[in-house]
Amino acid sequence: MLTISVDAMGGDHGPAVTVPAVAAWRRRHSATPARFLLHGDETAIRAELAKLGDAVGAVEVRHSDKVVAMDEKPAQAMRRGKGSSLWNAIEAVKTGEAHAVVSAGNTGALMAISKLILRMSAHGLERPAIVASWPNMKGGVTAVLDVGANVESDAEQLVEFAIMGEAFVGAVHGVKRPTIGILNVGSEDMKGHESVREAARLLREGGLGLAFKGFVEGDDIAKGTVDVVVTDGFTGNIALKTAEGVARYIFAQFKGALTSGMMARTGALLALPALKRMRGRIDPSAINGGPLLGLNGIVVKSHGGADAKGFSNAVRIAVDLARSDYLDKVGQNLDQLTSVLAGPTPQETTP
Amino acid sequence: MLTISVDAMGGDHGPAVTVPAVAAWRRRHSATPARFLLHGDETAIRAELAKLGDAVGAVEVRHSDKVVAMDEKPAQAMRRGKGSSLWNAIEAVKTGEAHAVVSAGNTGALMAISKLILRMSAHGLERPAIVASWPNMKGGVTAVLDVGANVESDAEQLVEFAIMGEAFVGAVHGVKRPTIGILNVGSEDMKGHESVREAARLLREGGLGLAFKGFVEGDDIAKGTVDVVVTDGFTGNIALKTAEGVARYIFAQFKGALTSGMMARTGALLALPALKRMRGRIDPSAINGGPLLGLNGIVVKSHGGADAKGFSNAVRIAVDLARSDYLDKVGQNLDQLTSVLAGPTPQETTP
Repeated sequence: MLTISVDAMGGDHGPAVTVPAVAAWRRRHSATPARFLLHGDETAIRAELAKLGDAVGAVEVRHSDKVVAMDEKPAQAMRRGKGSSLWNAIEAVKTGEAHAVVSAGNTGALMAISKLILRMSAHGLERPAIVASWPNMKGGVTAVLDVGANVESDAEQLVEFAIMGEAFVGAVHGVKRPTIGILNVGSEDMKGHESVREAARLLREGGLGLAFKGFVEGDDIAKGTVDVVVTDGFTGNIALKTAEGVARYIFAQFKGALTSGMMARTGALLALPALKRMRGRIDPSAINGGPLLGLNGIVVKSHGGADAKGFSNAVRIAVDLARSDYLDKVGQNLDQLTSVLAGPTPQETTP
Repeated sequence: MLTISVDAMGGDHGPAVTVPAVAAWRRRHSATPARFLLHGDETAIRAELAKLGDAVGAVEVRHSDKVVAMDEKPAQAMRRGKGSSLWNAIEAVKTGEAHAVVSAGNTGALMAISKLILRMSAHGLERPAIVASWPNMKGGVTAVLDVGANVESDAEQLVEFAIMGEAFVGAVHGVKRPTIGILNVGSEDMKGHESVREAARLLREGGLGLAFKGFVEGDDIAKGTVDVVVTDGFTGNIALKTAEGVARYIFAQFKGALTSGMMARTGALLALPALKRMRGRIDPSAINGGPLLGLNGIVVKSHGGADAKGFSNAVRIAVDLARSDYLDKVGQNLDQLTSVLAGPTPQETTP
């Protein structure tokens, strides 16, 4: 049976969120059989389970004494993390007991320990890539990667991001033949970095069979011009944090305007149901859950502050990835990339 | 008297916007004496002047036959642009006839021809830096540069951006001692590129006397954590285009919600005056006008699609820069940077 390993202690709220999240997932996906391994303090986990009764379904509690703190440095977490809920949850994927792991814990520690235990499947990545899923004008979602880990990304790594992002979007968002673009600047006469140009060449000519649409610009993310937007982790992290800041600013402006006087308040009250529906559609918890890509195993990171609904969405992503051919597909495409990079095929060199 | 050179033909609307914009500036700054040189098709300009009567004040029309097209490639514009309104408007700054030039023309052509005629004052820049002014949570404006020109920026260039951005914010936004941050990623254990770390070291230890606050992240732009955010032109361009796209997406979502039914529509109608005031505060035309920094002269680029109000704001920025000690201040700080980079001062090497 499909088994999902959960770091029950991770995040700002620990078992008070992670355990109800499993129950929430179960309610929404009653037709999908799955078993959960809950790693962490047994007493705390059992207390939450008791509140939920049967709703949580088939779970197994795996006690661990230690917890990796949310502010612990990755190097420290790697040295001292053995036996923690985070460590044990990942190890269950390594041993084959679980098909995927979900954690709302410390991102740096999760990345470092995942890399240590599971090892990278993609070449040359400093650490796993993170993909962000952003709602777009077309009513769908644009996947952007890498958004936070790999500061310097050469052409090969950008192509690896394309391969992993394409398989992710297919597996989780059900897009049949995801289209891919590489993020670049718009000025016509100097199209970006060497790495970006070389990656575009590889995607265009490398025979990887991906639906590559060329370069896109920053505003194409929200437009939904392509399904997968590829960029280095430095640019991706900054672009998306900038956008988050601007989004918060605009919401604050609307809120300020809609509470700025009796008439505006009355108007806001009338429009409230519609505004709430809109807010729900672009609710961060509905898109919570970023897989760490490029590992030999499925690891999904939930936002540390996620509520049960948000964490259950991260669980959903882990389940969707585990049930799909995601890892096989990525493996095949990475092999193909390796052979492309190794040089021309015999057919091309012999007359 | 203060003289501003205007490329009257630039932009999507030409004299129909640029000429009324001069009148609009005059109305709002009647106490500031200034003279305008209007470059372009004399008949078209005179037709607009005739409509405005005395409102436009002291202007001089300089006829030119040629216009650089909005879609002309920079290389082509440089070869064929001599004698165009764009070229002549810039040349008036070179000859000393005008103190600054404003154009809503083709960005690539404006940059290339400005660089050719005026030359760069900052070292090693491929082309002028562009600064974007974004409204922030504190009710002020955050200046971000470079946002569109210099794809690869080494540490020295990032420091030049800091120097130019600081002087710009002081001259145009009246900030007394502008604070500066360098855009970076948040992960603790690997703080960004080598160039970013080296630039931070130069700003911290270089004795340039700037109020450097260290690294900031993408969301600090909208927060207004610092007055000037420094980044390379690749990252800056992508971050701000991403943010623009997200801003448009959110406005579209609000609009959709507020027109989604009778009750919401009624509510929106009541809140309309407040929403309009808010929209006016964060109106792009109120922050239109991006100076091209790093040149031996003041060049301000207006958005091509700007209306008269927007273009008059670009004129205001040109006037503010021309009346301030902006060019002197930048010159002194760049000299200082050159001596810092040349090595330690004698006091530090002799015992």
